[in-house]
Amino acid sequence: MYYERLQHLSKSMEQHQLDAIALNAGPSLTYLTGLHFHLMERPVVLLAAPGKEPVLILPELELKKLEQASYQLRSYSYPENPASWGAIFRQGLAKLRLKGRKIGIEPGQLRLLEFNHLSSADGNNTFIDASAVIASLRAVKDTSEIGAMKQAVTIAQEALNRTLSLARIGMSEKELANELVVQLLRQGSEPALPFSPIVSAGPNGANPHAKPSERTLAAGDLLIIDWGATYDGYVSDLTRTFGIGDVDREYQDIHTIVQQANKAGRKAGKPGVSCKTIDNAARAVIESAGYGDRFTHRTGHGIGMECHEDPYIRGDNEQILKEGMTYTVEPGIYLEGRNGVRIEDDVVITSTGAESLSDFPRELTIIG
Amino acid sequence: MYYERLQHLSKSMEQHQLDAIALNAGPSLTYLTGLHFHLMERPVVLLAAPGKEPVLILPELELKKLEQASYQLRSYSYPENPASWGAIFRQGLAKLRLKGRKIGIEPGQLRLLEFNHLSSADGNNTFIDASAVIASLRAVKDTSEIGAMKQAVTIAQEALNRTLSLARIGMSEKELANELVVQLLRQGSEPALPFSPIVSAGPNGANPHAKPSERTLAAGDLLIIDWGATYDGYVSDLTRTFGIGDVDREYQDIHTIVQQANKAGRKAGKPGVSCKTIDNAARAVIESAGYGDRFTHRTGHGIGMECHEDPYIRGDNEQILKEGMTYTVEPGIYLEGRNGVRIEDDVVITSTGAESLSDFPRELTIIG
Repeated sequence: MYYERLQHLSKSMEQHQLDAIALNAGPSLTYLTGLHFHLMERPVVLLAAPGKEPVLILPELELKKLEQASYQLRSYSYPENPASWGAIFRQGLAKLRLKGRKIGIEPGQLRLLEFNHLSSADGNNTFIDASAVIASLRAVKDTSEIGAMKQAVTIAQEALNRTLSLARIGMSEKELANELVVQLLRQGSEPALPFSPIVSAGPNGANPHAKPSERTLAAGDLLIIDWGATYDGYVSDLTRTFGIGDVDREYQDIHTIVQQANKAGRKAGKPGVSCKTIDNAARAVIESAGYGDRFTHRTGHGIGMECHEDPYIRGDNEQILKEGMTYTVEPGIYLEGRNGVRIEDDVVITSTGAESLSDFPRELTIIG
Repeated sequence: MYYERLQHLSKSMEQHQLDAIALNAGPSLTYLTGLHFHLMERPVVLLAAPGKEPVLILPELELKKLEQASYQLRSYSYPENPASWGAIFRQGLAKLRLKGRKIGIEPGQLRLLEFNHLSSADGNNTFIDASAVIASLRAVKDTSEIGAMKQAVTIAQEALNRTLSLARIGMSEKELANELVVQLLRQGSEPALPFSPIVSAGPNGANPHAKPSERTLAAGDLLIIDWGATYDGYVSDLTRTFGIGDVDREYQDIHTIVQQANKAGRKAGKPGVSCKTIDNAARAVIESAGYGDRFTHRTGHGIGMECHEDPYIRGDNEQILKEGMTYTVEPGIYLEGRNGVRIEDDVVITSTGAESLSDFPRELTIIG
């Protein structure tokens, strides 16, 4: 599988006139090799060039990980002293005969730490933004990737079910968030969650990126829970909004509007339509209900090994969706100082349409 | 507190002839502002110049976070469409009148994403590696930082106590690691752990960076547990090695040697000695016992907001330790294919010596 991915990348490099790709520790390196490295003070770089054995530059301390490599990699390892690293980078680049060549990089992932080593290795190289080349490979998921994402959704949904059975008026957002994290792990999520759950009640819910606070759940609040799990390196990212006790009519209404916007966004997906179309479909529902200016963010983002990746579901993104692409649909309405609603699902493009990986009830459920 | 830190940085910039510092989302930005931003596809950059109001470039979506700022920041926010970001970076740089000036950066943290925006903003700037300037401020902890680290140690120690009471022969490394994570959260760790715990038994322990596997604990194994907690943004990082049932004499002996090396490393710390001295002190014990070539990594690393930061405790590092610096002492002996031992504590330099923040028993305790 990993070797096939490398072959696909090689083909893609040739199409884009790239002589090599350089990746540091992160999801794209793991996608291509199956190897996991932390982004740390010690740089790890994969150099791949079409038709050549890939080169991996890494600390000696990490050499054992290569035993898990699923294809042959030529390793160049360095000892603890950073003064020795430059020479090792030069050797790695020299092995692939990259003098004067075009090397593709990911600016959103590559640090100056690695870039400086690559660019000062006397290679006289041109470095080109290859984010889109790599992202377009990673964006189309195979069945094993979708299987892992489904499992990450199942774990998340089951963890929320168990957490909700403990939720009650008087509990703080933080307590509820902590309990949710424990349940995510108990249900089988990897410890590296895609993000710390957002649990925000009442006015805190009007901030889409709120951090759980000491605020306690009170009757009349809406409660936003935005959470996800990690399974086999793939993540889920879901949101549901609940009511605490009796909830004002207006809040019930905006919940209904967001639920309809979420549905419209989910239904709009199919091979050949653009990201823009999905955003427009969800946004139109909220706009026609008069809350357009209260939906303050894009409709969604791609999801897979990273919680945010291509394709981004924005009104200005003409990117065309293909079978196997996975992304979130997460419209919201935010009433400053009062309450917020967001409903988010993870969706995959099928051969004829789009299917939600998540099926946690979307209706306004009352707690407490 | 944050304003004081900014003042210290300003002084430091003047000493190092830097006209400004540019930091992206990460620990140094949080250290200087108290604000938390994720490292995501949307860049966040702090620009600080001596005697001027600092500039923060960020997504519109994150503007609400500025309400928590403890001093005045001039914000330049951008909408969702990446095509608009360049102009906002230009405005931010223009505000500080940085044309042709020297800007300090952190290559180990700054991505090309942010660097390209900064360097293509027509400022004709020179970018200089200012990692050491910033690290030297962050390396010396104040009492509130040490208090948070002590709490992160207490949480970790209590979590391990509770986990060990559940450990038994036949449990897998993964099960034990998952239980430890649950206990870390129950004891009050923030969900963003410094790292996923390492639980490695028998031959797996010979790999210092092993990932917990399905291997079950068996009599005769040594068991390495390397774990830590996060409290108020500060982390702990500890290791203890246990015996499962009856353990061979040689393994008991290497445990004793590592325990002595750990003690020698802890005792060697005081203001004015170099990192090299600490490494030598711990390494000498293991070398004189004949296992020098089985201690395959540095003796430790600085610790604070990051699990690995300055000062690095390496035999080639002449950096001088100062009161308030915090670092790990973690010697080990690794017998390829058989077993490993590592004992790690978090240490702070006091006015007269060094004090361990951790006091979990270091003797070889037998489980099961």
